[in-house]
Amino acid sequence: MSADNQQERLSANWVVGFVDGEGCFYVGINHPRNYLQILPEFRIVQHERDEAVLFELQKFFGFGKVTRNNGDRKELRIRGIQNLKNIVNFFKKFPLKTKKQKDFEKFAEIIEMMSEKKHLSKVGLERISELVEQMRRRKKRLKSSETIRQTS
Amino acid sequence: MSADNQQERLSANWVVGFVDGEGCFYVGINHPRNYLQILPEFRIVQHERDEAVLFELQKFFGFGKVTRNNGDRKELRIRGIQNLKNIVNFFKKFPLKTKKQKDFEKFAEIIEMMSEKKHLSKVGLERISELVEQMRRRKKRLKSSETIRQTS
Repeated sequence: MSADNQQERLSANWVVGFVDGEGCFYVGINHPRNYLQILPEFRIVQHERDEAVLFELQKFFGFGKVTRNNGDRKELRIRGIQNLKNIVNFFKKFPLKTKKQKDFEKFAEIIEMMSEKKHLSKVGLERISELVEQMRRRKKRLKSSETIRQTS
Repeated sequence: MSADNQQERLSANWVVGFVDGEGCFYVGINHPRNYLQILPEFRIVQHERDEAVLFELQKFFGFGKVTRNNGDRKELRIRGIQNLKNIVNFFKKFPLKTKKQKDFEKFAEIIEMMSEKKHLSKVGLERISELVEQMRRRKKRLKSSETIRQTS
């Protein structure tokens, strides 16, 4: 069986398993001048040797950009509310099985609020900031343990 | 949908996707006194918050031990030639989609040789050492890039 044959088609369940391991739901907040800018994105980072899998995932979802992450790492990056609404719908249909689901639920709430333009109100913006803060706190906790993770 | 419901049953494709991200095919070589000891194992390491997924994987395969890896990390560890032959059969039926497949192929060759007692001959042992060396070199290359990996 060749590597090419293996990459012919991804199944939804394989995608969920891979994202449970490697996916990242991220919401950036910028402060240009007097307003807040909310920048949600979904990304999957891989060593460049596995660039082919990122292109397979791009084909699977039907959107996203494969680009350099850092050094010899590449990423599939998905931005834009319409694309991210599709991502949210996919992971509602095929739920994650790890605790990454907790991040996803907050991410989904933010995407739904943004698609209803609720981030333009003060109350909506406060709720989004709160959710982003919760996601950051969890990542910080995990990151501090990442340094002792055995990769062998 | 509760976290419990999500973890009710794993599908083979989810397992392959998760292992493509998080699994590790490892062969240790010890040198007690005058002989070589070959210790192959398959493991999946997770932060302890995702211990439940490791138990689900243990249930899925029907063997393996969930134990502490390091600090707040836990691992599902599968050892023993008979169990590892089952693991090899599973990933032959449901191939990995990332370059981890290359490691798997070497691992599978080692397990097959060991189950035929070929590691007891000088020629067999040399072939196994060569395969282990190839796996190590690949991991070393990847590890050196791991430090700059963005985890956010």
